[in-house]
Amino acid sequence: MSHPNNAIYIYDTTLRDGTQREGLSVSLEDKIHIATKLDRLGVAFIEGGWAGANPKDAEFFQRMQTQPLHHAELVVFCSTRRAHLTAATDPMLVPILAAKTKWVTVFGKSWDLHVTEGLRTTLAENLAMIQDTIAYLKGCDRRLIYDAEHWFDGYKHNPEYALLTLKTALEAGAEWFVLCDTNGGTLPHDIARIINIVYESLKTWHGGKIPQIGIHTHNDSGLAVANALTAVQHGATMVQGTINGYGERCGNANLCTVMPNLQLKMGYRCIEPEQLSQLTELSRQVSEIVNLAPDDHAPFVGASAFAHKGGIHVSAVQRNPITYEHIAPESIGNHRRIVISDQAGLSNIIAKVENFGICLRKEDGACRQILQKTKELEQIGYQFESAEASFELLVREALGDRPKFFAIKNFYVYCSSDTKHLTGSVNSQATVKVVVNDVEQLTAAEGSGPVAALDLALRKALINFYPEIANFYLTDYKVRILNSELGTHATTRVLIEFSNGKRRWSTAGVSDNIIDASCKAIGEGLEYGLLSAVRYSPMLTTKPF
Amino acid sequence: MSHPNNAIYIYDTTLRDGTQREGLSVSLEDKIHIATKLDRLGVAFIEGGWAGANPKDAEFFQRMQTQPLHHAELVVFCSTRRAHLTAATDPMLVPILAAKTKWVTVFGKSWDLHVTEGLRTTLAENLAMIQDTIAYLKGCDRRLIYDAEHWFDGYKHNPEYALLTLKTALEAGAEWFVLCDTNGGTLPHDIARIINIVYESLKTWHGGKIPQIGIHTHNDSGLAVANALTAVQHGATMVQGTINGYGERCGNANLCTVMPNLQLKMGYRCIEPEQLSQLTELSRQVSEIVNLAPDDHAPFVGASAFAHKGGIHVSAVQRNPITYEHIAPESIGNHRRIVISDQAGLSNIIAKVENFGICLRKEDGACRQILQKTKELEQIGYQFESAEASFELLVREALGDRPKFFAIKNFYVYCSSDTKHLTGSVNSQATVKVVVNDVEQLTAAEGSGPVAALDLALRKALINFYPEIANFYLTDYKVRILNSELGTHATTRVLIEFSNGKRRWSTAGVSDNIIDASCKAIGEGLEYGLLSAVRYSPMLTTKPF
Repeated sequence: MSHPNNAIYIYDTTLRDGTQREGLSVSLEDKIHIATKLDRLGVAFIEGGWAGANPKDAEFFQRMQTQPLHHAELVVFCSTRRAHLTAATDPMLVPILAAKTKWVTVFGKSWDLHVTEGLRTTLAENLAMIQDTIAYLKGCDRRLIYDAEHWFDGYKHNPEYALLTLKTALEAGAEWFVLCDTNGGTLPHDIARIINIVYESLKTWHGGKIPQIGIHTHNDSGLAVANALTAVQHGATMVQGTINGYGERCGNANLCTVMPNLQLKMGYRCIEPEQLSQLTELSRQVSEIVNLAPDDHAPFVGASAFAHKGGIHVSAVQRNPITYEHIAPESIGNHRRIVISDQAGLSNIIAKVENFGICLRKEDGACRQILQKTKELEQIGYQFESAEASFELLVREALGDRPKFFAIKNFYVYCSSDTKHLTGSVNSQATVKVVVNDVEQLTAAEGSGPVAALDLALRKALINFYPEIANFYLTDYKVRILNSELGTHATTRVLIEFSNGKRRWSTAGVSDNIIDASCKAIGEGLEYGLLSAVRYSPMLTTKPF
Repeated sequence: MSHPNNAIYIYDTTLRDGTQREGLSVSLEDKIHIATKLDRLGVAFIEGGWAGANPKDAEFFQRMQTQPLHHAELVVFCSTRRAHLTAATDPMLVPILAAKTKWVTVFGKSWDLHVTEGLRTTLAENLAMIQDTIAYLKGCDRRLIYDAEHWFDGYKHNPEYALLTLKTALEAGAEWFVLCDTNGGTLPHDIARIINIVYESLKTWHGGKIPQIGIHTHNDSGLAVANALTAVQHGATMVQGTINGYGERCGNANLCTVMPNLQLKMGYRCIEPEQLSQLTELSRQVSEIVNLAPDDHAPFVGASAFAHKGGIHVSAVQRNPITYEHIAPESIGNHRRIVISDQAGLSNIIAKVENFGICLRKEDGACRQILQKTKELEQIGYQFESAEASFELLVREALGDRPKFFAIKNFYVYCSSDTKHLTGSVNSQATVKVVVNDVEQLTAAEGSGPVAALDLALRKALINFYPEIANFYLTDYKVRILNSELGTHATTRVLIEFSNGKRRWSTAGVSDNIIDASCKAIGEGLEYGLLSAVRYSPMLTTKPF
């Protein structure tokens, strides 16, 4: 981490505080996946969780030891030790050390009320807990970030005691002092006033050294981002937040809003400009991983953030973008959407297809055909951002370059709850009729669910012709209901990710029937894998495994 | 409108700027419905639309003449007259006068670039357009609000010209001067600096009279609310915004966030306290009218805004609410929710069950039984935070208070892709065997997908016994694959939301077979609806519709 003078250290807590959002749950694999993406984005710190608070977080830190991050510092989070124990004997700290991170974030109580009513201990014991925990972890060769929980409320109620907790953390060896607006109720002018005081106090206690202050805000007053920016303007150099503002209640400071504001408008440096231009993609990938619909109206990264309607408006923005756009959408990897003009669409297609090594011009018939087909499919719910293999197949189709490995003629799927008594689950059976080399293959298979049964039947039909299929396996299966207000009559989009152990690729299927949507995505996934094995190696719309 | 000295005039533009949101459309009846509700909430001004811009808006103002508002001033919106016409001869102003409102809001260009590049006229002609339009409408006995479009960007590029447009509006007779951050790119410190200058300029031009300044902000930088609050702190006394922050691109300042901040935290008065306590209900009613899902994570009014999880946390908030709540949820008509999550302990269960009017103690066997069952189900993938009805059924089961309306004995589901040629979609058939009053009912139904077919078959079996079932409908259907790395063999969690038109409730089902998981959730949803209809009304784990 080498940073210029106007550097702001971005501390991502999506994997810990973000997962407190109601309705959000992540698997171990999801956490690793998100950490890898955050590392690539270039944030300074990634808080992985509270090792020991649950088995998943402890396992996460173990797994991360075998696949270390390239850029970011991985941080483990914990509280101060329990009252009337010592840090050295508190079992809570054992998994924290076992996480083997260079950095540990310790949170402690700043608000006297929380010490007496929450922890039910004395103000003096709370100071001892802060001191002992930080000093012990420092003695174990860790670097320390101190999260001052309920800082602003605590300061307002008892400023002397609140400042004493920070002084204790400083003297015990913490390097960063993060002021938390835990309940999210503080307004920007109070943030400014209080940070000024903290800044001066820390500087005085530390013999004039510039203090390293962080800010951690929540959005209960709709001001998490404003509060974080205000803190930076008053001397904070670390901002804690989450991707897409995920977090308890109304969420945390949204890093997808904080970073562009700091970097594009206020002259600070959080990540490299070319990393910032990946922000929109990252935001959508994370929402995809946690399976929450992306917020189309999110600042900067939302699909509607640069959408323009109306004639005069559109011609003005095309003549001079600053008339209606506060920043250049490309700087954060978003793009202008003009509802009525398909001109922007054509250049998008050309840019995308260039990725496959294909050069198209606007005048080419295939170019217009691809655009029209894409728009038609998007209209019915397709989304190619997370299904690039399906998009490549569509492009090759338009160019007459899509070999026909097989065709699915029909399928039948059957589920019976009666199998439950025998096998413990509701087994499904599927039959599928596939045409390969002009010959029909009718196969049947059984699986734990209807989609598993269909996948197996399809493979059975194809394996004799294409033995490579044995190497392809499904690594992810995601379902999204598109017009959910229609209940069970809604359109379903299925996204499937395949792997052959070396590369991964993704396909999509859309239908008002989930089995039908899955069948489409599986069919294209197997087709794309064959395309790779037989002709193209490595393909261009795959990702390294 | 009589207001005390710390009064802030709330100007609602949900019906005009709010409807610019992508995906939002309202009928004439919807607009009247919303206007009536806003009037009851107590806002000072309601902007109804641009009469003449479309037939719906003209008709709206006609209809409102026959059913006038009780409290709020209805406002019609329009631009300055066209270049090189006179206001008296510009046909655009005919429907504006026909709207017969006391107040008219005229918007004009503040930014020189928009005059020359957008309107393609001269800077002098733009001033004449502002002067002529305002003076003409004033001559027709209207009171005038002047919206200075692109104010902040205009001021930054050419402060002299921007100020000249305001001075022109003042001299022509406008009473309010609304500074618009049309592109949403301005930061709070620039808002503060520029409003200070406007305040002093207007005061000087008007012989020392306190100026009436309004603020109109957009959320492109995630700062619409912060910017509005900053403007008020620097002298603005009118705030324009929309309910739920609806609006073009990333939306307008959310009045459901602005009003509680101003009134509960900053000492201003927007509406009466008893009106403010209707805010949560209003927010949800408006989202219902415009048919957009309410944002559960919205500040103040979201269903998750006062949701608590975690053991220590829950007991602390019950002992002393200010430990974890920045305001009293009742002040805006919201309420505290204790969430059941995998961190649940006995005290969580007790607090949660209290919501159902059931008093449990830690020593009770049922209490421990509920906790154990909850943990078991969470282990296999259940999640009760979004399925509170399923949780209530579990609690009633443990307490021996769950009437048996019906039991699903078995089901069969069948999908065939061959129907596609005939009906355009992959139809599904389901048969289900249900036991009601010890008698078996075997029914079959057809639907667009397997889950729809199953839902219909189940209703067919139950409708003769429980006709209330006809009033229950599915409003949301969510699917989450839990261990997605297992591909199609993964566990599936289905969350379903039902409504009876008055209340909403949610259930969950988990299985390695998506049909089985859906069947469980649908069964519990219908059961819970019956529980409500037959015995408890209104139930406690429902949300207002």
